[in-house]
Amino acid sequence: MTTWPAPLPVPPDAPAPLPEPARAELRLETVLGALSDPLRLTIVQRLLLGAQEYDHTCGWFGFDRPKSSLTHHFKALRAAGLIRQRQYGLERRSHVRVDDLEARFPGLLALVAAWTP
Amino acid sequence: MTTWPAPLPVPPDAPAPLPEPARAELRLETVLGALSDPLRLTIVQRLLLGAQEYDHTCGWFGFDRPKSSLTHHFKALRAAGLIRQRQYGLERRSHVRVDDLEARFPGLLALVAAWTP
Repeated sequence: MTTWPAPLPVPPDAPAPLPEPARAELRLETVLGALSDPLRLTIVQRLLLGAQEYDHTCGWFGFDRPKSSLTHHFKALRAAGLIRQRQYGLERRSHVRVDDLEARFPGLLALVAAWTP
Repeated sequence: MTTWPAPLPVPPDAPAPLPEPARAELRLETVLGALSDPLRLTIVQRLLLGAQEYDHTCGWFGFDRPKSSLTHHFKALRAAGLIRQRQYGLERRSHVRVDDLEARFPGLLALVAAWTP
């Protein structure tokens, strides 16, 4: 089974998360819909496997896409409850909601981690 | 972990399956997209948990939906590789591709089985 690095602790000076659904509000059909796009699957997989620091910006991914398109995809992932986003000045940074997703949908992140683009 | 009845063996007189992607062609993003609709999740969950016979017709579900709408959803599930369909005279009957899905996406069907509509 594919695994991933343990989530890093929240830094004490981290800004509050942007609005997101609570753990109990997560819906499987919504989460699966958000993951049904290869770019969004790629975002979640890279955030999951490459967490060398706490939060990542859009720019960290190096996607050759307009920033507005990436912003849209990150927002969709946050609205579905897959990622948590925080505003650091002009930047939004993201990480996967590992604990919430493992609690509600055990095995889902293993599928994402094992995905071959 | 939620489990389901073991798949029944294919009856020797079963018609050939309708066209479908081979196991190696299944794509996670496509499978997740097909499951991102509550009705389609319901179809797969009921086929998975209620397999008292080999194949099930649309009518077995008792959905209050036009037949054309159900035909569309079953076809989408077949095209994504979630179900296998066979034509019995005028009827199409379906079952979940348990072995193929467990081989390619282990844990996915457990999430479907545990889903609360």
